Amino acid sequence: MSEKGKLIVISGPSGAGKSTVVFKAIEGRNDFCFSTSVTTRSPRPGEVDGREYFFIDRETYDRMVEQDELLEHAEYVTNGYGTPRAFVEQKLNEGMNVVLDIEIQGARQVRSKMPEAVMIFIIPPSMEELRRRLVNRGTDSMEAIEGRLARAKEEYAEAEGYDYLIVNDRIEEAAAAFSAIVTAEHLRFADRKDLLK
Amino acid sequence: MSEKGKLIVISGPSGAGKSTVVFKAIEGRNDFCFSTSVTTRSPRPGEVDGREYFFIDRETYDRMVEQDELLEHAEYVTNGYGTPRAFVEQKLNEGMNVVLDIEIQGARQVRSKMPEAVMIFIIPPSMEELRRRLVNRGTDSMEAIEGRLARAKEEYAEAEGYDYLIVNDRIEEAAAAFSAIVTAEHLRFADRKDLLK
Repeated sequence: MSEKGKLIVISGPSGAGKSTVVFKAIEGRNDFCFSTSVTTRSPRPGEVDGREYFFIDRETYDRMVEQDELLEHAEYVTNGYGTPRAFVEQKLNEGMNVVLDIEIQGARQVRSKMPEAVMIFIIPPSMEELRRRLVNRGTDSMEAIEGRLARAKEEYAEAEGYDYLIVNDRIEEAAAAFSAIVTAEHLRFADRKDLLK
Repeated sequence: MSEKGKLIVISGPSGAGKSTVVFKAIEGRNDFCFSTSVTTRSPRPGEVDGREYFFIDRETYDRMVEQDELLEHAEYVTNGYGTPRAFVEQKLNEGMNVVLDIEIQGARQVRSKMPEAVMIFIIPPSMEELRRRLVNRGTDSMEAIEGRLARAKEEYAEAEGYDYLIVNDRIEEAAAAFSAIVTAEHLRFADRKDLLK
């Protein structure tokens, strides 16, 4: 593949079905990959370095932050997490579209460091439907579900700077929307002027 | 349909297959129409007012130009031609995507008056292929074909401000590209913020 890939950032409330939409859209395609994060936390049983995460020590992490080698990063409890710029750049140069599933704060950092990223916000058709999905998922207590719904409302208010908004009502349609966006972004006039020479 | 349509401007060399691509893409869809131009020239036998053109007199035309009622306009020989803004706006408000097939100069005028227009430049895979298509079409003399090829090169040099570039190699792919662009443009975050309320 000669054409460079696109960095595709997806955000949206927990329960919106972000990864389901993307997996459906990229089924059978070999020009997509997910970004792999670095973390300072220890691998859990079964986790493989470079698959779930790149496991690095605190010293390396701090150096990467300092030298601007992370497109975004955040601390959770005592551990650092981040998206390594070099990994993303390498995949893009290989012609892969790199999907990055992150929260609004991280998305904002990515946008400032890589303005050409394609930013997609994915939402459920309604808060009632989101509640139903979270209940059906069966992994959260009712209290946790209320917390997620409250957080979703905050996210709606904070979301800005995204390029596209997909409503995940029917999964096939949402996946088609995702695919159409990626196709269109690869047709950008400004990126293809060489074809006019 | 509650959602507003998109104004889609297509340009590109004669012989690139612009209208073939669009017709293929909108086959069986009822949310697209082509813009109908006004002209001061007289109707030819078989032409119907409001179908091929809106036939208007010079006085009306001059008034429309003066009152900025045309999204773009140009004189050919002794007649004026233009795209009526009111017609386009009406169709957009009805939820129709309006396709406007015009040259670079006209496209530039439209962009300045309606910056939200989606601007697509459509080209053949190569100048050799363009020549082959023009020859096969059988409607032009060899001299006219050379003229069209020279004009195509000029257009490539002048093209600017377009949002997307489609290479019409295989018609199905080019039509799919056109459709993906329209789908993506209807998913613009900035136009859909109301869904976050």
